[in-house]
Amino acid sequence: MTEWYLEPAREPDEALREQAQARQDNLTKPKGSLGRLEDVAVQLSALQGTLTPRVDKPLIAVFAGDHGVAAEGVSAYPQLVTAEMVRNFANGGAAISVLAKQLKAQFSVVNVGTVYAIEDLPNVVDRRVGAGTQNMCVTEAMTREQCLEAFDVGRDTLDGADDINIFLGGEMGIANSTSAAALAVAHTRLSATAMVGRGTGINEQGMAKKAAVVTRAMSRHLPHMKDGVETLRRIGGFEICALVGAYVRAAQNGVAVLVDGYICTAAAISAVKVNPSIRPWLFFSHCSAEPGHKRLLNKMDAEPLLELDLRLGEGSGAAVALPVMQTACLLQNEMASFEQAGVSRGND
Amino acid sequence: MTEWYLEPAREPDEALREQAQARQDNLTKPKGSLGRLEDVAVQLSALQGTLTPRVDKPLIAVFAGDHGVAAEGVSAYPQLVTAEMVRNFANGGAAISVLAKQLKAQFSVVNVGTVYAIEDLPNVVDRRVGAGTQNMCVTEAMTREQCLEAFDVGRDTLDGADDINIFLGGEMGIANSTSAAALAVAHTRLSATAMVGRGTGINEQGMAKKAAVVTRAMSRHLPHMKDGVETLRRIGGFEICALVGAYVRAAQNGVAVLVDGYICTAAAISAVKVNPSIRPWLFFSHCSAEPGHKRLLNKMDAEPLLELDLRLGEGSGAAVALPVMQTACLLQNEMASFEQAGVSRGND
Repeated sequence: MTEWYLEPAREPDEALREQAQARQDNLTKPKGSLGRLEDVAVQLSALQGTLTPRVDKPLIAVFAGDHGVAAEGVSAYPQLVTAEMVRNFANGGAAISVLAKQLKAQFSVVNVGTVYAIEDLPNVVDRRVGAGTQNMCVTEAMTREQCLEAFDVGRDTLDGADDINIFLGGEMGIANSTSAAALAVAHTRLSATAMVGRGTGINEQGMAKKAAVVTRAMSRHLPHMKDGVETLRRIGGFEICALVGAYVRAAQNGVAVLVDGYICTAAAISAVKVNPSIRPWLFFSHCSAEPGHKRLLNKMDAEPLLELDLRLGEGSGAAVALPVMQTACLLQNEMASFEQAGVSRGND
Repeated sequence: MTEWYLEPAREPDEALREQAQARQDNLTKPKGSLGRLEDVAVQLSALQGTLTPRVDKPLIAVFAGDHGVAAEGVSAYPQLVTAEMVRNFANGGAAISVLAKQLKAQFSVVNVGTVYAIEDLPNVVDRRVGAGTQNMCVTEAMTREQCLEAFDVGRDTLDGADDINIFLGGEMGIANSTSAAALAVAHTRLSATAMVGRGTGINEQGMAKKAAVVTRAMSRHLPHMKDGVETLRRIGGFEICALVGAYVRAAQNGVAVLVDGYICTAAAISAVKVNPSIRPWLFFSHCSAEPGHKRLLNKMDAEPLLELDLRLGEGSGAAVALPVMQTACLLQNEMASFEQAGVSRGND
């Protein structure tokens, strides 16, 4: 039996891509003058199989999990904050909560494995795979079974949503930019120094320590990374693995994905490693202030929509970028053609 | 009597700027992690004199005018298209019409001087200053009186709007990227070659011709550009002068401005030259595909919000960027503080 996460996503419809481009070229504007917005709408046409694509029914899911590597002192915040922020998501005070409300998105918060137990909260799904991962400097972050269980959490989150046409994943987990940096090193083979950043706000000294931590983890695990799942279970996190499952399932369900920041992009490259067929379904919302993010995006040939020096996570950058994608669709769907408007053509 | 366009705009409230930054630093996120969004919201706080700034009541005004320099063959489109597009704006088929509707903006189309007369149209204000400008390669584009009359058109457009808190200007005028390039050269003293681009879609040969046209115009007019108004009336356009008047009046009225693409940025730098007090009121929506645009933005120390290879004009890039500004406000206004949410602080 094939594991569910290996099943291929539908390929883009190339005939519809051509028709959508022809439609764009026939709208009352100089050819190509809507730039990246045209690319987004045309790609969505090919994915959704329609000349009038839509991303007006978003699901935003934030996955939370703790990281054993926090014990190495790589974050500016105490580990307790992961659980505290889950409560903040549920209560509507976090950036992503405010944005989800504004976007009229289905909004789901999933606890995939905080260290501290969280009381029952409305809008928070308890799917704890464990009380945080193990410290990747010392051992594998998790077992293979835990990794696959976290994939299933992502899958179930997508399958439980009704009538969506775009998925935005978010994450919360103190120290998870260290795990993301390790995954980025694993997938690019660039140096740890190139892939670590300030995260929530450490200083130069903190960054040097963080790079050393990633280097130690990599020297332990690199020889054993025989496939995408093994890499994830050794140096990933529960919330990162849930994102991988969610990205794969979104694509399998015919739902386009808008990837958030550095941690989500590390999950996205991991997901493509596990199941390469999902790549066309991924859109990239922004290039963050984390220096490794741009390198990771380059590795994926990904062109982010925004560059606003964001470094918050939670899915917030994806939520900021969603209106740009929606606008791209709106223009393709509603602008008049030269014939309809009685406008003369140029020789562009 | 001082001319109206020289009257100063209100200065930003520096005490409120500090309070707004303190509020940002107290929201449940790592300090500075919302990047450029924090800057936008804090600047708006200082301008609007409130900790809860808003840009949810936009006025979008598109000014149309024809350019005598079109006779030099600098555009891919016939001059007739300026009037045809005015009809398209009115009928809802143009990009900016679609965007204005989506943003629930007050939307105004103002004919400041097309060559071809346009029948009465609902939603189009007829304020023709002339039947297009003169060819700046041969003579001054307009008289000083026409320039000031076009300023008044911009002023009246702002004064006629009710209850707005953000102004987005747009423009339509075949050949107006040539006038914009000339203004860009005048204000930066960079070469014509550095400031011309493809406009609506000319080829390399067309760009060389366009640069030569700008160079000819500059050699005629540069010795006589004794002030901002004189520069505008020699090499500007009716719609560009109306934008200048509109930008100045918006700032005088306490309304922030979101500047669109290359032509609007040329109008913005011209407006700041005429009335430097308005500079803090200007936000820049995007860096377009026109190579001169980035140079002009640099000259103004302006950091645009987006870079999406747009080159349509009409105000479309500003309309695409407005949701980003609105999101910046929303987050400052609605996120919870550390105290409210019971979240531990980091040492960032």
